[in-house]
Amino acid sequence: MTVYDFAIGQTNPETFPAEAFKRAALRAIDLEGAAMNRYPGGKGHLGLRQLMARRESEREGVLVNPENMALMNGSMQAVTLAGQALMSAPGDLVITETYTYSGTIAAYKGIGLELVGIPVDADGMRIDLLEQRLKELPVKPKFIYTLTSYQNPTGTTMSRQRRSELIDLAARHDLPIVEDNCYGDVHFEGDKQPSLYALQPDPRHIYIGSLSKIFAPGVRLGYLLAESPYFQKIVSRRHDAGSNYFAAAVLAQFYQEDLWGHCNNANAVLLRKRDLLLAALQSALKDICIWSRPTGGLFLWLRLPEDVDLVKLKALSAERGFYYAEGKDFHVEGKTVHFIRLAFGHVPDASITQGIPVLAECIARCRMSNASGQFTSLFDD
Amino acid sequence: MTVYDFAIGQTNPETFPAEAFKRAALRAIDLEGAAMNRYPGGKGHLGLRQLMARRESEREGVLVNPENMALMNGSMQAVTLAGQALMSAPGDLVITETYTYSGTIAAYKGIGLELVGIPVDADGMRIDLLEQRLKELPVKPKFIYTLTSYQNPTGTTMSRQRRSELIDLAARHDLPIVEDNCYGDVHFEGDKQPSLYALQPDPRHIYIGSLSKIFAPGVRLGYLLAESPYFQKIVSRRHDAGSNYFAAAVLAQFYQEDLWGHCNNANAVLLRKRDLLLAALQSALKDICIWSRPTGGLFLWLRLPEDVDLVKLKALSAERGFYYAEGKDFHVEGKTVHFIRLAFGHVPDASITQGIPVLAECIARCRMSNASGQFTSLFDD
Repeated sequence: MTVYDFAIGQTNPETFPAEAFKRAALRAIDLEGAAMNRYPGGKGHLGLRQLMARRESEREGVLVNPENMALMNGSMQAVTLAGQALMSAPGDLVITETYTYSGTIAAYKGIGLELVGIPVDADGMRIDLLEQRLKELPVKPKFIYTLTSYQNPTGTTMSRQRRSELIDLAARHDLPIVEDNCYGDVHFEGDKQPSLYALQPDPRHIYIGSLSKIFAPGVRLGYLLAESPYFQKIVSRRHDAGSNYFAAAVLAQFYQEDLWGHCNNANAVLLRKRDLLLAALQSALKDICIWSRPTGGLFLWLRLPEDVDLVKLKALSAERGFYYAEGKDFHVEGKTVHFIRLAFGHVPDASITQGIPVLAECIARCRMSNASGQFTSLFDD
Repeated sequence: MTVYDFAIGQTNPETFPAEAFKRAALRAIDLEGAAMNRYPGGKGHLGLRQLMARRESEREGVLVNPENMALMNGSMQAVTLAGQALMSAPGDLVITETYTYSGTIAAYKGIGLELVGIPVDADGMRIDLLEQRLKELPVKPKFIYTLTSYQNPTGTTMSRQRRSELIDLAARHDLPIVEDNCYGDVHFEGDKQPSLYALQPDPRHIYIGSLSKIFAPGVRLGYLLAESPYFQKIVSRRHDAGSNYFAAAVLAQFYQEDLWGHCNNANAVLLRKRDLLLAALQSALKDICIWSRPTGGLFLWLRLPEDVDLVKLKALSAERGFYYAEGKDFHVEGKTVHFIRLAFGHVPDASITQGIPVLAECIARCRMSNASGQFTSLFDD
C-alpha cells in the first residue's frame, strides 16, 4: 500500500547534502580526531558556535557573541533545560500559545510545569489576551514560551507589532521570554520577522535555535543564546558533559564551506511542496475545510468541519495509508479539536498530489452531514 | 611550559582509529542519509543497539536483547534519567560508594537526591557496611548506584563475592541497583568480573554502558539496559527526541567492521601507560605515598601524607604544569581528603615519566614534616 506520511516534522531527504556532508566528515575527523578524545564541555564546539553566531548575525543584523551560546542536543534539550532553570517548584506556571509543539508540552508537563495557553491568530499570540490573562492569574507565571515564526502546529508567524507588544508586556511584568525559533531559517516566502533579541536586547530573553529543521534532525544539534545570569543557570542544569562534539565538528566543516547554500536549496524545494499541497487542498477540500498558508516551517494547519468523526477519520485514514498529526496533541489541555496538522517537508511530490484526494475522501466518509464547513477562520474556536 | 595533564578521564588520542572512523562515516552517510532526516526516537539507532547488545553478550556470556536497550547521550544521560525516574521527591536518598564520579554527584545533587556514601575497599563497596547503614537510615533509599568495575576514582573492582552479596541484599530490601559499567571494556589485566545482570537476572537491575571510554567521549554515546517497567519509566523521562543518529550510524559501521579490535589495541597501550605510571610512582614516591594498581579504567588513586598542604600542592603543581583531580571532588560529602586521582589514559608516555617526578617534588615542598606516609592502606580513612 502506498503510504502518505504527513505525520512527523522531518526534513526533506531529497535535498540532504550527502556529498558535502561526507567531505565535511573527512575533514573533521582529520583535523579534530584528537579533540574527539576530550569532553566537549557545557558550551560545546567553538567553531560551530562561531558559525551559528554568524548565521544569527547575518539573519538578524545584530552582533551575536558565541560565548553566550551553548550547543544543545537538539533544541528540545534547550527547551527542557530552560524550563528547569526558570521554574522553582512543580506546579509553577508557564505561558505558551494554546496550540504549541507536542514535544514541548510533554517536556514541560514532564518536569512539573503547568501550561497556560494563550490563543493565536494570523499574527501570532494574542498579546491583548495574554495581558488579560496575566491580570487574572492567581500567581505569576515563571516565563513565557513562544514559537514566534512558522509556529508549530498553526504555521503562523508573530507580526512585528505583536513582537514589540510582547517584549513590552513581558518587561512590565518582569517575565523571562523563551523564544523558540527552531524553524527560523526554514523560510520560503515574504519578509522575515526579526527575532526578539534583535528587536530589544534584554537579559531576560532566552533564544533557541536548531539544526534539526535547517539541516537534519538526525544530527541532534541545536543551540541556546542567553545572557548572564540565565545562561549559566541553564547550562549548569545539563549533566551530560556537553553536546556531541563529533557531529558539531562535522557540521562546522559543512557550514564553513557554505553558510547558507543548503538552506536556500532546501527551502526552494519546500516552497514547491507547499504550493503543491495548497493546490491539492484547493482542488479537493475547498468547500469543506480551511487551512493556513505557511510562509515557512514544515507544517500546514487544517480545520475540519465540526461534524467529522475524528476517531473514525484517524482509523480510516490509516487504513488508506494516510497519516497526519491530530490537533489535540498540540493543545495545551489536550482538548479534542477539529484540526489536523500536515507535515509536508519530507513528503514526495507525487504523494502530496495523490495523498490529499485520499484524505478528502476519508473526510467525506467521516462526516455526519453534507453541510459545508460553516466557518471562515482558522482561529475563532 | 610542558603540561602534565592528569586531570580529566579522556581517552588516548594516540590510538584513535581515525582511518577506520572515516571509512565508517562515509558508509554511514551513503547508507543512512535518508534516515538522518528522521528523528531517532527514544531507543535510537537499531543497528548500533544490536552491536552493543552483541558486545555485552560476548563479554557477559548471556543473551542481551537490543529491545531492552536505549542509546543515551553518553552514560551520564542514563545516570541522570535513571535517578529522575527512580526518585519521587527532592530529598530522596541514593546509596553510592563514598567516593564516586564527580559528574554523578553533581547530577544527583542537581536533581535533588541526597547521597549516602558507603566505603569501598580493594574488593569494592563494603556490603557489610551497606547492610548496617540500611538498618540505621530513617527512610528507605530509592536505589543503589554503583561503579562496579575500575571504579572512578578509586580504580577498585567489586569482587565476585561482593557482587553476589550486593544482589542478595538489594533484593531483600527491594532496592533497584543502577550499575554503571562505563569503564567495563577498558580492561587490561587479569580476569573480568561479571556484570550484575549476568549474575542474576532481576527487573530491578539497571545497567549503563558507554562508548566514551572505549571509543571517544566526543561521540557522546552510551546506553542503558533495563527491563519493564523501569525501562519505559526511564526512557519516558527523556525529552530530547533521542540520541544522535548520525554518530550512532557511524559507530554502527565502525563496530560492524570490527567489534573488539580497537578496544584491544587501545587497552594494550593503556596497560603500557599504567605500567609506566606505576614505575614512575615507585621510583619517585614509594616512601611517601601509596596508590592503587588499576586492572582497567583510566584512573589511579593516590593517597598523600596527612601533612601535605593540599591548597599549596594544587597551586604549586599547577604552577609547574602538573594537573590532577582532587579527592574531595569525588567524596559524596565534598570532604577534604588527602587523595588525588591521576587520569593516565591520554597522557603521552614521556609526560608520565617526566611528570611524576615533578609531582613528587611538589608534594615534598608542600609537606609540613619529613615523616614517611605513616599509612599502609588506601581505604582505612
